[in-house]
Amino acid sequence: MKFVFVAGNTETARIDGISAAGATPAMMVHTPSADLEIVTYGQPVRAPVVPVSPSGCPTPAVVTRAVYELVGFEQIAVDAGLARPTSAPTVSIGVDPGQNVRESTPVPAAAAAFKTARELGRQLPDEKLIIGETIPGGTTTALGVLTALGERPTVSSSLPENPLELKQGVIEVGLNASGLSAGDTAGDPTGTLRCVGDPVLATVGGLAVGATESGTDVTLAGGTQMAAAAALVRHAGVDAPLSIATTVFIVEDESAAIKELVADLSVDMTVTDPGFDQRDHQVMDTYLTGEAKEGVGMGGALALADQADVTMAAVREQIIEVYDRLLEQDEAE
Amino acid sequence: MKFVFVAGNTETARIDGISAAGATPAMMVHTPSADLEIVTYGQPVRAPVVPVSPSGCPTPAVVTRAVYELVGFEQIAVDAGLARPTSAPTVSIGVDPGQNVRESTPVPAAAAAFKTARELGRQLPDEKLIIGETIPGGTTTALGVLTALGERPTVSSSLPENPLELKQGVIEVGLNASGLSAGDTAGDPTGTLRCVGDPVLATVGGLAVGATESGTDVTLAGGTQMAAAAALVRHAGVDAPLSIATTVFIVEDESAAIKELVADLSVDMTVTDPGFDQRDHQVMDTYLTGEAKEGVGMGGALALADQADVTMAAVREQIIEVYDRLLEQDEAE
Repeated sequence: MKFVFVAGNTETARIDGISAAGATPAMMVHTPSADLEIVTYGQPVRAPVVPVSPSGCPTPAVVTRAVYELVGFEQIAVDAGLARPTSAPTVSIGVDPGQNVRESTPVPAAAAAFKTARELGRQLPDEKLIIGETIPGGTTTALGVLTALGERPTVSSSLPENPLELKQGVIEVGLNASGLSAGDTAGDPTGTLRCVGDPVLATVGGLAVGATESGTDVTLAGGTQMAAAAALVRHAGVDAPLSIATTVFIVEDESAAIKELVADLSVDMTVTDPGFDQRDHQVMDTYLTGEAKEGVGMGGALALADQADVTMAAVREQIIEVYDRLLEQDEAE
Repeated sequence: MKFVFVAGNTETARIDGISAAGATPAMMVHTPSADLEIVTYGQPVRAPVVPVSPSGCPTPAVVTRAVYELVGFEQIAVDAGLARPTSAPTVSIGVDPGQNVRESTPVPAAAAAFKTARELGRQLPDEKLIIGETIPGGTTTALGVLTALGERPTVSSSLPENPLELKQGVIEVGLNASGLSAGDTAGDPTGTLRCVGDPVLATVGGLAVGATESGTDVTLAGGTQMAAAAALVRHAGVDAPLSIATTVFIVEDESAAIKELVADLSVDMTVTDPGFDQRDHQVMDTYLTGEAKEGVGMGGALALADQADVTMAAVREQIIEVYDRLLEQDEAE
């Protein structure tokens, strides 16, 4: 088994009010590079900051790292259009960061990225891949993908109040810029990605398609972005079983309708509740208010902990340990 | 602790009779990329072949992978001038493959590579780094470095009969091309690397210097190439303790004089004997004839197994398992 972390950027994240995946819009661009370093090393190395939301909710990479420290899974990181350098070791897909989804062609090299990722997915010798993502603004491009494919156009948000109308407006502009209407790119995953996607979705989709082609079991670790990736896989004609592993925070977000989404796509879903209400701590509190919810494979990591019979109480304590270490490092600098 | 694998190429390997790190000179260029994949995934993924010597001795990456499968250490790979793509995740140093050491400036960007690696070494949060290498032709450039620094000019070989005179002739040409004599670049590690080194030595040297600067314990896993790296660290003015972990095959190679080398440089040495004479198998036999001897962190991996109380008998059986898997894959393709 390998946990694959696919990281990249899209200019879509710069749209005001779209994402909480960074303290400020200027800091948000570093989030995916920092997330990979936190998962790999337990702390940022080259990245300048620990990613937090504007209100201080720490990145779900902290949760994934905490589970890693308890369970010790094998991991590889994939550079699917990082805008900033990272000291985490990465497999490069050779794709640039995505442009703003409001433009006509935000991912000109979507087909090449999908193909490269598909080959990688086919070649990896593991029996099982768990695939996570980190890309600020990614739920908006996921909405673009679901809409263009003609699937249920609902996504979650890293903000407590999902700015769904804002996202829908952005995607309407994006579809218009590409001369498309909802459902127009059904059956054409790479055309969809090229016009309204992002490089991370192109890579996750390609990896999943390639992996299923070589008989590898695929779990998509995340929320509605991973549902969009699953939709891409289905529209590539793949009937193989697919699973999503996500958090209770996504399922409780009624604006996201993830249960209906995965049912539409014939995708199994595992939902893990880390029990943050049972531990009075600022990290837990921010998640309980509906911030972050998912990302960097959090739901898949929690499911792994569960399968390894590590209690959620132990996971919560380890989250605090990872978080305290990050704070110490921040203060030391 | 992290095991860091630094991989790259030098055109020096194309000189006839210099290296056994590939079945043919044309295949040898793929060896470092394949070695990283074997250590990361247990088999080549994108690389076209399992690296073997002309007589069929498999790469020491097989040994390192076997220990990984038994002990489970954390690993990161560093691209220090790979000439061929790899599907292993890598941290890029941003340096090109080295040119032939007979030319005047085989590593024009040596100083930049050394600096980048030094920063990485300083930033990695681990308390201990074990650093291995894979670069065909690397003992010849190591001889160049030792000679130019004025250290004992002796190195080992991946061939049973060390072509030391050939290497000395190559280095003499290289020094002349750079307008240098033995000892001329003492105290100038990056000048040395630029004129008679390779990008892997530049990276290992920089990593080790940076790591010691931030109080990280450094073990150089390898033979005389790692002694050359240690010499670079000493000539950078670093007095911190340094260790080399190598195999009995290097120590038994009298042409290499590793004991004298490490004594000159005030470097501790751990020598591990995997007991290949106690297991009748073609892999073991090729090592016993003096092929390969070291590389891809083999000596460091064996020392880790020893520290983890894994017996060498268990390591030998796991080596056979990894090797058989590689053969099966080769036949399936």
